[in-house]
Amino acid sequence: MAIDGASIAGVGWTRYSRNSGASVEELAVEAVRAAADDAGLDVQEIDGLVTYGLCDTAYSGVVGTSLGLGELNYFSDHTAGGNVACAVVTEAAMAVATGRAKHVAVYRALNGASGIRYGGGAWSQMMATTSLFSDAEPQFLDTCGLTMPAQHFAMLARRHMIKYGTDHRDFAAVAMTCRNHAALNERAQMREPLTLDRYEASPWIADPFRVLDCCLQTDGACALIVTSDERARDLRKPPVRFRAGASSGHAARGVMWTNFAEDHSTCYAARIADRLFAEAGIGREDVDFAELYDCFTYSVLVQLEDFGFVPKGEAGAFFRDGQAALGGRLPVNTHGGLLSEGYIHGLNSVTEAVIQLRGEAGARQVEGAGFGLVCAGGAANSGSALILGAA
Amino acid sequence: MAIDGASIAGVGWTRYSRNSGASVEELAVEAVRAAADDAGLDVQEIDGLVTYGLCDTAYSGVVGTSLGLGELNYFSDHTAGGNVACAVVTEAAMAVATGRAKHVAVYRALNGASGIRYGGGAWSQMMATTSLFSDAEPQFLDTCGLTMPAQHFAMLARRHMIKYGTDHRDFAAVAMTCRNHAALNERAQMREPLTLDRYEASPWIADPFRVLDCCLQTDGACALIVTSDERARDLRKPPVRFRAGASSGHAARGVMWTNFAEDHSTCYAARIADRLFAEAGIGREDVDFAELYDCFTYSVLVQLEDFGFVPKGEAGAFFRDGQAALGGRLPVNTHGGLLSEGYIHGLNSVTEAVIQLRGEAGARQVEGAGFGLVCAGGAANSGSALILGAA
Repeated sequence: MAIDGASIAGVGWTRYSRNSGASVEELAVEAVRAAADDAGLDVQEIDGLVTYGLCDTAYSGVVGTSLGLGELNYFSDHTAGGNVACAVVTEAAMAVATGRAKHVAVYRALNGASGIRYGGGAWSQMMATTSLFSDAEPQFLDTCGLTMPAQHFAMLARRHMIKYGTDHRDFAAVAMTCRNHAALNERAQMREPLTLDRYEASPWIADPFRVLDCCLQTDGACALIVTSDERARDLRKPPVRFRAGASSGHAARGVMWTNFAEDHSTCYAARIADRLFAEAGIGREDVDFAELYDCFTYSVLVQLEDFGFVPKGEAGAFFRDGQAALGGRLPVNTHGGLLSEGYIHGLNSVTEAVIQLRGEAGARQVEGAGFGLVCAGGAANSGSALILGAA
Repeated sequence: MAIDGASIAGVGWTRYSRNSGASVEELAVEAVRAAADDAGLDVQEIDGLVTYGLCDTAYSGVVGTSLGLGELNYFSDHTAGGNVACAVVTEAAMAVATGRAKHVAVYRALNGASGIRYGGGAWSQMMATTSLFSDAEPQFLDTCGLTMPAQHFAMLARRHMIKYGTDHRDFAAVAMTCRNHAALNERAQMREPLTLDRYEASPWIADPFRVLDCCLQTDGACALIVTSDERARDLRKPPVRFRAGASSGHAARGVMWTNFAEDHSTCYAARIADRLFAEAGIGREDVDFAELYDCFTYSVLVQLEDFGFVPKGEAGAFFRDGQAALGGRLPVNTHGGLLSEGYIHGLNSVTEAVIQLRGEAGARQVEGAGFGLVCAGGAANSGSALILGAA
């Protein structure tokens, strides 16, 4: 009752920018080709494609055709948000472990800056159209002016502030930690140093969030190749092993971002943490770094707490004390996160974990990185996570 | 390298009609509840939801919330057509076999008659909007007036007619076989007898297809519960075992329905047949009945041939000779198929296979049914199939 024998053999990405000048399909093709090249795999050997998106998906049919692939033995096009960024890797690992396909490329491509901007009201309209969450909900929320994610997450953050005394300096510490890591990452879009003064001077988006609390709407794509451990060992790069994967979705009375059945100051991570560590057969103390979903600064705090790395209400201090920085107790978002590298809907946090576990992260390398946690989804009600291990 | 230990423990459905008077979410909830009731399972024990659709999906988040479910440990919302109707069952079996979830409900709900009609031009517009196949393609096809599936499949059928001498009596034999079976199925919408004269008098849709060559646009939903063999044995009904599942997607240069890399008179079934039977560990002669995807009459012929039950070009004679009828060599579409039961996007063929393998099909029961083949997807370039076995 586990997923045995799957590894990540390659990772790839496009330039992350504000204007790609390319379609999402072109971006996807570029990223998948780069991942295959990284693995030393002939792109024609890819026989599975898995992706996700909302109304901006680069579908597997188009991407497979554009790559000139032959038969696909496995394919999935999920209508979903960043909550599945780790679940799709787990799905690819299942497909490989059960013999559905040999080389599955998992990718996400989006024009989040020049195309559909997730931070804006158009996004809310898109959600209403697809009725992803509930036909009933947008009619109540939109008419109150609650049309963008920052407004929803702001209410979750406020609850945490009231309950635990979290304040803006805790959020700033997350933003600054990510920025410091991004300075060491050539892919990152925001690399200049960030001070508390600059943070405090940045404009409001939705109180308590300033613009520097929000991830970077980004054009780009990234991809990774999942295959068997055995096959991965024959390829160019050290395999990164799939050790555990868990998801939690849409709990009772959870609508949009929220979960009315539980206190908003907790998230899905509390529900999946124990089974994730049990499947991996490791403890929290064995995790060398964590890539947490920072759609907003607040989200990182609640994930760190709900995975049990710190008691509730203490994640802010953990960041302020430098424990989440490179060299600290548990480096978080070593690439700069979605806040400073860019928002490739969370899949770029998986590619960063692979690079760390291969020891290829250069100036931002976590020394002796053996196990990495990746978490996807910033909302209270749904998300997924992975534990990956060095070969 | 197989999927071991998964069974289908329950099936359920709503009324199949031309006007449900309900939302797709309501239909989905009703079908999932019915499947849980059939299994003797408390609906609250469902911890996984898997579905698919195009722009008419009843998303797992809404359906899970409406069912009052707790945590979902596995969920998938695929943007896909009937080509994945078997693949989603395989996915649920993978999820159970690898310990992702304990009781996964797979469902499909649509208002295909009163809502989005797949047979119409609105469908083509929807496809262009989601760019499911290719941004480039609808601009060329729509402007030629190729806006609906019947037109695309008509060209595939014509190629088969030219190459193998297939004619309209072969298509009529498929329609009449399905109708005879539907007469024995209380769920079926079209149960009155069908003669060749009536078939020949029915209006053209897209030459060589008359209206009686086309499946029934239907409002309704069906669902099934996938769980472990062990758990299924504790539930109310005899388990139906998952024996094999295979998919083929979007082969090279395949766009929309077609596959320019191969002769249009063959389909994906030729590519998956051998691995499907190998996984099940059975031969074609062990299959007691087949539920083939009859979006159009023609599609059944090419699937029967490409799975290797008859040589190419001989499927029409197989139907005309009564070999596909109940009591024949291989009964096909025992429920009446999508042509006469209704078009629940192919998932209703899986529920029928379960009923047959439990020996509950009454007047239309295939005697001693031990293994059933279900096939999903009528187009040349993409589809999926299952082999299910009696307990």
